[in-house]
Amino acid sequence: MKKKSRFLQTPIEPFAVDAALSADQVLARMERISFQGRNLATAHRIWQKMLQDDVTIFMGMAGALSAGGLRLIVAHLILHRYIDCLVSTGANLYHDLHETRGQHHYVGSPHADDAALAEDRIDRVYDTYASEEEFISNDNWIADFAATLEARPYTSREFLYLLGGHLWKTTNRDGILTAAYRANVPIFCPAIADSSVGMGLSQARHKKPGTGHIDIIGDIVESANLVIRRPRTASVVLGGGTPKNFINQASVQAEFYSDEVGGHRYALQIVTDVPHFGGASGSSLEEAQSWGKLATDSARVSVQSDATIALPILASALANTAPPLLATRKAPVFTLAGRVMTVDGQTVPNARFVEEVNEPTV
Amino acid sequence: MKKKSRFLQTPIEPFAVDAALSADQVLARMERISFQGRNLATAHRIWQKMLQDDVTIFMGMAGALSAGGLRLIVAHLILHRYIDCLVSTGANLYHDLHETRGQHHYVGSPHADDAALAEDRIDRVYDTYASEEEFISNDNWIADFAATLEARPYTSREFLYLLGGHLWKTTNRDGILTAAYRANVPIFCPAIADSSVGMGLSQARHKKPGTGHIDIIGDIVESANLVIRRPRTASVVLGGGTPKNFINQASVQAEFYSDEVGGHRYALQIVTDVPHFGGASGSSLEEAQSWGKLATDSARVSVQSDATIALPILASALANTAPPLLATRKAPVFTLAGRVMTVDGQTVPNARFVEEVNEPTV
Amino acid sequence: MKKKSRFLQTPIEPFAVDAALSADQVLARMERISFQGRNLATAHRIWQKMLQDDVTIFMGMAGALSAGGLRLIVAHLILHRYIDCLVSTGANLYHDLHETRGQHHYVGSPHADDAALAEDRIDRVYDTYASEEEFISNDNWIADFAATLEARPYTSREFLYLLGGHLWKTTNRDGILTAAYRANVPIFCPAIADSSVGMGLSQARHKKPGTGHIDIIGDIVESANLVIRRPRTASVVLGGGTPKNFINQASVQAEFYSDEVGGHRYALQIVTDVPHFGGASGSSLEEAQSWGKLATDSARVSVQSDATIALPILASALANTAPPLLATRKAPVFTLAGRVMTVDGQTVPNARFVEEVNEPTV
Amino acid sequence: MKKKSRFLQTPIEPFAVDAALSADQVLARMERISFQGRNLATAHRIWQKMLQDDVTIFMGMAGALSAGGLRLIVAHLILHRYIDCLVSTGANLYHDLHETRGQHHYVGSPHADDAALAEDRIDRVYDTYASEEEFISNDNWIADFAATLEARPYTSREFLYLLGGHLWKTTNRDGILTAAYRANVPIFCPAIADSSVGMGLSQARHKKPGTGHIDIIGDIVESANLVIRRPRTASVVLGGGTPKNFINQASVQAEFYSDEVGGHRYALQIVTDVPHFGGASGSSLEEAQSWGKLATDSARVSVQSDATIALPILASALANTAPPLLATRKAPVFTLAGRVMTVDGQTVPNARFVEEVNEPTV
Repeated sequence: MKKKSRFLQTPIEPFAVDAALSADQVLARMERISFQGRNLATAHRIWQKMLQDDVTIFMGMAGALSAGGLRLIVAHLILHRYIDCLVSTGANLYHDLHETRGQHHYVGSPHADDAALAEDRIDRVYDTYASEEEFISNDNWIADFAATLEARPYTSREFLYLLGGHLWKTTNRDGILTAAYRANVPIFCPAIADSSVGMGLSQARHKKPGTGHIDIIGDIVESANLVIRRPRTASVVLGGGTPKNFINQASVQAEFYSDEVGGHRYALQIVTDVPHFGGASGSSLEEAQSWGKLATDSARVSVQSDATIALPILASALANTAPPLLATRKAPVFTLAGRVMTVDGQTVPNARFVEEVNEPTV
Repeated sequence: MKKKSRFLQTPIEPFAVDAALSADQVLARMERISFQGRNLATAHRIWQKMLQDDVTIFMGMAGALSAGGLRLIVAHLILHRYIDCLVSTGANLYHDLHETRGQHHYVGSPHADDAALAEDRIDRVYDTYASEEEFISNDNWIADFAATLEARPYTSREFLYLLGGHLWKTTNRDGILTAAYRANVPIFCPAIADSSVGMGLSQARHKKPGTGHIDIIGDIVESANLVIRRPRTASVVLGGGTPKNFINQASVQAEFYSDEVGGHRYALQIVTDVPHFGGASGSSLEEAQSWGKLATDSARVSVQSDATIALPILASALANTAPPLLATRKAPVFTLAGRVMTVDGQTVPNARFVEEVNEPTV
Repeated sequence: MKKKSRFLQTPIEPFAVDAALSADQVLARMERISFQGRNLATAHRIWQKMLQDDVTIFMGMAGALSAGGLRLIVAHLILHRYIDCLVSTGANLYHDLHETRGQHHYVGSPHADDAALAEDRIDRVYDTYASEEEFISNDNWIADFAATLEARPYTSREFLYLLGGHLWKTTNRDGILTAAYRANVPIFCPAIADSSVGMGLSQARHKKPGTGHIDIIGDIVESANLVIRRPRTASVVLGGGTPKNFINQASVQAEFYSDEVGGHRYALQIVTDVPHFGGASGSSLEEAQSWGKLATDSARVSVQSDATIALPILASALANTAPPLLATRKAPVFTLAGRVMTVDGQTVPNARFVEEVNEPTV
Repeated sequence: MKKKSRFLQTPIEPFAVDAALSADQVLARMERISFQGRNLATAHRIWQKMLQDDVTIFMGMAGALSAGGLRLIVAHLILHRYIDCLVSTGANLYHDLHETRGQHHYVGSPHADDAALAEDRIDRVYDTYASEEEFISNDNWIADFAATLEARPYTSREFLYLLGGHLWKTTNRDGILTAAYRANVPIFCPAIADSSVGMGLSQARHKKPGTGHIDIIGDIVESANLVIRRPRTASVVLGGGTPKNFINQASVQAEFYSDEVGGHRYALQIVTDVPHFGGASGSSLEEAQSWGKLATDSARVSVQSDATIALPILASALANTAPPLLATRKAPVFTLAGRVMTVDGQTVPNARFVEEVNEPTV
């Protein structure tokens, strides 16, 4: 009989339907099917591996995930330290703050009459609505808070920590910003100027000259120094955008100053963009290797799916499978209250790059 | 205080993570989030409604779902009568037959060296492999079987019933074709000529003149007559393609001959194509209303997702929620063994349209 | 100085804007840009190469291209023998017939009120409308014609030739069907049962028993025999779907019976589907090599674009660059009037495969 | 005879192929076809209308358009004042600077061996390569320049004007940055921290303490004040991303302080993202109306296409049709050299919002 081809090793195992399967059991049965179903199951396995290894786990989020009902998942991932550092668009933080302040987004229709919505001052995000009036009240709230701060530049990381603290003290409610505050998880927002958080800050400046100043170049330095301090990293990306690139950039920038940095050891992305138009959001994890953003021997998977489908399943599965891993995980310990943050007792400066791991800093 | 806009009725409820959630519980928590996650949850609800109503449920499947590990889900849906009639591409039936015959598809890589695969005679479907040699053996098996049949035209529905029966008797194994045979669920394959099932049939004709003849115009008549016999219908579409349109066409064609037909009462589609390029696969369910394919008051939802993610979750959820509905459901009863099929005791001719519901037929 | 990497050979040449550029000059300036622009320029070059080589050029078309305003481009490509054989969905042929009969599709809006359209019996295809009444008149026209034919099975190829002839004699107007009739270019329609052409045929059967019979397995045999007769082939695909696969299948099926067949020598596809969901429409040309659908040394390009953008530009460019190539091209010569077609004087049977090129046939 | 439906007004006019069509003639023949082809033709018409009206034309660019060969088109649009203000990602400006400095991007393959590329230190962007070493030299060049500037915060707009001037004086070569410098067209880069321009700035800070400081909240104030000064605006968006939102945000923010602002009067976007995942990049122009980003009676069109296909054609067509419009157009006149820019002789402050159009400023 003819020898079997080396390519034919692992048979596809068709998904078998059963009653009462938990989310992780569903994913386990998807491990040997094909296409994006297999990829989602692989994402579950890779995230578990990240938690077992000694890596700093960055998570990026872009797209209207907070307005779209995923903010408490992200808060959960932060609080239980499935992740160590969040990079977000401003809109996701703003919509999180909106709900943490006790307001809502609303179930709507993608076929709405937008002129009628405009008349009612309702803002539409595909099939979801929000009140413009409430948004304006958020802008004011942010502006008022920012105007109370000392008139100096803040990295987005420092400002968001302070904002999260203020929000927690005011509301005592769960959300992304408040979870990050409570769990001492840093949040970076490199495109904060392109969001309503930025609009609130611009109004602070209008109210009180000298306030509302964000030092986003400091964020670059700080994020790269974090990678220099802890060169083993992992990347979880939801939706691409500026967060995806900023996480990769931290790695690339860190490599200039430290030989120990070699790209993420693990990478998983849940995206809807595609590679063939050349944009960074849809770029493949293979391409990321050419840049050194990703170690060539990294474990990686790209899931082509709307995060509003993939993340609830993935997080529900992890809620079953991850707790023992989380219990023994040694997550990095941050202090975020000061102008200069620390990780595991070492400073992470934002004014200059740390060139040797052991040099005295700032 | 200002009156709230009529647009702001139902707040988004952020997904709350918990351990040990079953698939249906995950979907229940996705009902009030946004975007495709909400749509998937809505699909779960609409399918339940279909099962409670007195409708004939058509399911269409296109894309490499059988090779991709979903064939036993479809077999499950057939056997437990979540659906009443399957419309499929030829490839899905062929890949089903391939595995039912005891062969496999294999886990592969989308980054494979295709020249090396070609040398080994391995056929690749994105990240999945199959042996060309085994495929050739299937073609022969189909050709041999078809050559045993009386030399006359068969509707694809009749041929596939006979093929399913032969496959069941030969293998005693579960699969789409064998489940449909056992459950007396008709399968139509309007584009059978564009598949390896068709290739097998063409080889039958080569082996034994006069065999290998499919009457696909008869399939049009038969499917329309089925809708005339049972004018209340529902449509579940996986992936678009010819099955999606054929199911709609049956409804449109039936309307010419019966006033009781008024488009599907329920429609759910899980597709990855988009509407804005004008193709039928991605066309919206709203557009379908203009054609009368869908009742204007139908319950409907379109889920933009790879079926390899959406279907395992949906089927797992239904496995928990549907059994009581299935227990009381009155599914249409088919006899499929003859040249002319029957439904609920009435003939469903393929030679001419049934113009009045109660007329004597054939 | 450091040696330059072998990867850095050909610089990107930014597109330089100028007044009065013709379509081919625009494409020439896109040859060294990136992404899909480069691919479209490459498609122009590959099509020119096809015309210079001795290959049978198959073209597949799927998606609502006829309704969408591209039917006269396809007619032009047929009449001037840019292509030798068309494989189409039924809808494209039907919408072509609709306009050739003097009727129209209409500019509409994707945001239309579909219930209002349904009330006016207007069918919508994304942003394009048509009258249901006129469609019903087409169905009748097709049915009446088919009912005049001898009551026997016809391959879709034979039927469409006869239909084209009848249409030309009735209307004297340009279109896909009439151009193919006049230029003796065969048209295959493997999924004819999934279209209004099929609906018309089903009504012929209703009107006159025994008519309306299409032998689509005969189409498989015939298309494979065409490749056996002329083993050097090229494939131009618009939109994927059944035509894409049918063209590839002809090549794969032919290979069983002839050693001279080795997959298409040239392949270009203009598609909007993507590979990563596993469907055939979006499958890559690299994957096609594993199947032997495409020669491993073929010239090939995949353009990710709506055909309503890419094809007008490509055809306009070719109208400038191709005429000298067309003038010297030796296109295959078909006779299509009979039950059995011929190419270059050799029969192309549909009842059995031609096993040796020189054997006596039928 | 039955009255024709009100929906059937304008027939589709199939595209007619001819030799020697110029780009604008190709687009003119696409005006009455369907789908994205029609949309591209409409984009051409809308841009012409913008040029005839008295509006400030903002253009946003995201995606690897500069690396991908479109930078000289954008430079052309700036120099000839098809646009008045550019909002860009940092990467597009960086890749522009890379080539203006005499270096290149290179034609590559999407199927490259990324480990081999990594070894050669070649960075891949889908099918395009660049030398990491040359990128590092750019970072240094930017850092060196930034380190020569006075140690104070700069809006991205001010910094990019200075950078463009330095680049022009150093190279005398055409490009986006140099064209904007020469034509006095402001460039905003709200996500500058998420790019290699930002990395260069962070290295400036490392080299010389106190430098490398960007005031992106100032950019928000300045862009909104520009809209307050000139409330009639238009938006041209390539690829979505932060630029798309920033342009809309300027309009929304301006509305808080001026009643004359009412959303863009014209909007055209060329995007590949889709609306149904809820992200801002793919969001529809209809949705934008609900937010007041777009006037409800605006002329607007969304083209679903890779910009590397759509923009070369559109720009080539405009090069034929726009010159008479440009000749009589009264474009806004900027001075950009100072910390505070002016438009048409009025200051555009970045420290506070201008509340009345005629108030004395700064």
